[in-house]
Amino acid sequence: MRDVAIIGIGIIKFGELWEKSLRDMAVEAALNCLTDAGTDRADSVTIGCMSSGVFNGQEHLASLIPDYLGKNNIPATRVESACASGGLAVRNAYMEVASGLSDYSLAIGVEKMTDVSTGMATYALATACDRDYEAFHGITFPGLYAMLARAHMERYDTTREQLAQVAVKNHSNGALNPFAQYPFPVTQEAVLSSTMIADPLRLLDCSPITDGAAAVLLTTVEEAKKFKSSPMVIIRGVGSATDTLALSQRKDMLELGAVKKAVHRALKMAGKKIQDIDFAEVHDCFTISEILVMETIGIVKPGQGGPATIDGLTALDGKFPLNPSGGLKSKGHPVGASGVAQVYEAVSQLRGESGKRQLNNPKLALTQNMGGSGGSCVCHVLEVKD
Amino acid sequence: MRDVAIIGIGIIKFGELWEKSLRDMAVEAALNCLTDAGTDRADSVTIGCMSSGVFNGQEHLASLIPDYLGKNNIPATRVESACASGGLAVRNAYMEVASGLSDYSLAIGVEKMTDVSTGMATYALATACDRDYEAFHGITFPGLYAMLARAHMERYDTTREQLAQVAVKNHSNGALNPFAQYPFPVTQEAVLSSTMIADPLRLLDCSPITDGAAAVLLTTVEEAKKFKSSPMVIIRGVGSATDTLALSQRKDMLELGAVKKAVHRALKMAGKKIQDIDFAEVHDCFTISEILVMETIGIVKPGQGGPATIDGLTALDGKFPLNPSGGLKSKGHPVGASGVAQVYEAVSQLRGESGKRQLNNPKLALTQNMGGSGGSCVCHVLEVKD
Repeated sequence: MRDVAIIGIGIIKFGELWEKSLRDMAVEAALNCLTDAGTDRADSVTIGCMSSGVFNGQEHLASLIPDYLGKNNIPATRVESACASGGLAVRNAYMEVASGLSDYSLAIGVEKMTDVSTGMATYALATACDRDYEAFHGITFPGLYAMLARAHMERYDTTREQLAQVAVKNHSNGALNPFAQYPFPVTQEAVLSSTMIADPLRLLDCSPITDGAAAVLLTTVEEAKKFKSSPMVIIRGVGSATDTLALSQRKDMLELGAVKKAVHRALKMAGKKIQDIDFAEVHDCFTISEILVMETIGIVKPGQGGPATIDGLTALDGKFPLNPSGGLKSKGHPVGASGVAQVYEAVSQLRGESGKRQLNNPKLALTQNMGGSGGSCVCHVLEVKD
Repeated sequence: MRDVAIIGIGIIKFGELWEKSLRDMAVEAALNCLTDAGTDRADSVTIGCMSSGVFNGQEHLASLIPDYLGKNNIPATRVESACASGGLAVRNAYMEVASGLSDYSLAIGVEKMTDVSTGMATYALATACDRDYEAFHGITFPGLYAMLARAHMERYDTTREQLAQVAVKNHSNGALNPFAQYPFPVTQEAVLSSTMIADPLRLLDCSPITDGAAAVLLTTVEEAKKFKSSPMVIIRGVGSATDTLALSQRKDMLELGAVKKAVHRALKMAGKKIQDIDFAEVHDCFTISEILVMETIGIVKPGQGGPATIDGLTALDGKFPLNPSGGLKSKGHPVGASGVAQVYEAVSQLRGESGKRQLNNPKLALTQNMGGSGGSCVCHVLEVKD
C-alpha cells in the first residue's frame, strides 16, 4: 500500500446559495482546491453526495462534475453513505492512490439542499434512516436524535444546559470561520429558549439545511514532496464501519458501534491512541451527537460528555478541542460535503492556516463523519510532517 | 498493487419481483455469491445502486445492506454512476483488495425499479442525464438513444432490420438463461411491429424496467488459491472513464468517448488487444447501443455494427459473441445491478458453468458497462487461470 498525502484543500462559503447550482458549487470547491495545491492534475475524482437524486433530480454526478470541471475523461465515482458521504469520498480517493490506480486523486463533497420545500428536504434526509421500519412510520432525524438525547439524560443525568453548551461552543468557533453559514455566537439562553423541534431538542440544537461543497487533493507521499508551498499532511489512518440502520435494532441505543469501530480502525492503522490526538472535527449534527461521539471515541467516559463540555475541555483553548471550524452546527451541514469539509479544517489547522480560530501548533488530527443515526461512520487520522 | 481474483458469483432471477424488496434482493444475491465461493468472509462491501433514493425513498444502502446481510460492522460503500453503478461497484471492490484495505471484498449490484408508477420510473432514469440541459426540456432516455439511432442510420445506412437483429440475437441467448426476465426468443417481425417508443426505436429495441441483484466476491490471487472448487478467474484489467453528461456537448454524437477510453485502459492494463478477447458482455440498453459499442471498442469498423450483427459475428456461435447472457435486452436491466450481472456472466462462462448458453472454452472476457448516454463507462478484462 502506498502512503498518501493531502496536497490541496478547497471550500466555498456555506449557506443558502440561491445563485449557485449543485455543479457550480462542486466545481468552485474543486478549483479552489487545485489552486491551493498548485497543480491541476487529477487522475480520478470521487464525489461524495448524499441525495442529489431526491434533492435535485440529478444522479450521475460522476459524469456531470468532471465534465464541468473540464476533466471529462477521467475515472470518476460518486459515493454515498448518507451524511458520511464526504468522509467516504476521501477514503475512496485514498484507495485510488493507495491501490496505484491513480497518482493524483480528487475528493469532492457537495450537497444542494435549499432548492426544495422544507417537507421535501425532510423527506430527502429521512432516506438516510430505514424507510420500511423508521421513516414509513413518521420518524425523522430530529426525532431519532431526540430519543438519543432523552435516553442520555435519563441514564447519565445529562442536562439541557450541557447540551446547549455544545451549540454555544461551536458557534463561538464558527464565528471565527469566514466559510461558516452562521458565523455568529449564540448564548446558552438563546439555545434554551429557541423553538422546540423534537423534545428535548430545540432549533439551536440542530445543524441547519445548507448548500455547500469542499474538496481535497490526494497523492503519494513521494509525489507530495514536489509541493513545497505548504507543510505536508499525511493520511496516517483510515477507518470505516457500519451498524444497524434502524436505531431500534441496536443492543444499546447510546452505543454508537460504527463510530467506535471506525475510530478504532483509523487509530490502529495510524499506530496511535486517542490521547495522542491534538484535536478533532466530529459529527455534531445535533448537540447530543457531539456528546455521544466524545464519549464513544474515548475522550471522556460515558456520561461525562456534558460536564466536560461545560468545563471547557473541548473549547478552542481546551485540552481536546472539538470542531474548531464551528462544526456542522455553526459552519452548516451540506450533508455530502461535511465529511470533506472536516478534512479541509483538519488540514488547514495542521498547516497553521486557520486564522483567528488557529489552534496552538497541532500535529495530529482526527476527523469523524457519521451517517444517519450512526448506521455508518468514516474516520481519518491526519498528521503534519515536520 | 495486489493481483485480484473473483472467487464467488451470485445472482437472482430478474423480473417484476413484487414479493421482494430492495434489501431482500441484495441480500439474496450476496448469499448466493458467498455460497458459491464457499466462504462467508467479506472484509468490506460495495453496493452499486443508481437511484434507490428516487425509486425507493431509501439512501444509506452502505448501512442497510451489510446490516441485513448479518455483517453490520464492516466498511461499506455505495457507489453510483447511473447505469454503470454495477461496474463501478466491482471496480471499487477491486480497489479495496488491490490497495490492501480489505483481503475479501464483496460487490453487490441492486435496483428495485417496479415499485413506482411508470412516470416515476422515467423520472428516476432521467436523473442520469443532465437535469438542467436535457431532462428539464423533456428528453428521456429512449429519446436520446433514438437520436443516436437516427444519426447512425443517416451516416452509415444502418437499417431497422439490423437494429432489430440485436434484439433477436440477445433474446435467443436469453432464452437459454434461467435468470433472465424475458427468457424467450423474439422474431425480427415482432421487433419491427412492436409499439413505437421514440422513432426509430420500438418497444422491443428497449431494455425493460427490472428488479434484480447480482454479487461477486473478490480476494487476492494468493488467497484465491485456497478455493479449489471452481477455476480461478483473475481481474487482469480495470478501466473507467467519463464523457460530457449531455449528449449535445459531444463533438461527435456517435463517438462514445468514455467507452473508448475505458476499454482502452482496461485492455492496456491487461496487456491485451480487443482481438485477444473471446467474448464480451456489453451495455445493450437499446439495440443501437450494442451496435455503437461494438464499433467503438474495435470489434468492427464504424458503420459495420449492423451488417456484422446480421452476419452472425456476435451470435452465440459467432466469432465474437456478445451478450451470451441475453444482455440487458432479454435478461433485464435493473440499472445498478447490470454491471455486476455482466461480471457474473463473464465468470460463469470462463468457468464453463453456463449450461445451454455455454461458449466453447473461452479464456478471456470483457465486460463493458455504461451510464446515461455514455457519460460514464466501466470495463473489466477477466481471464480464467488454466
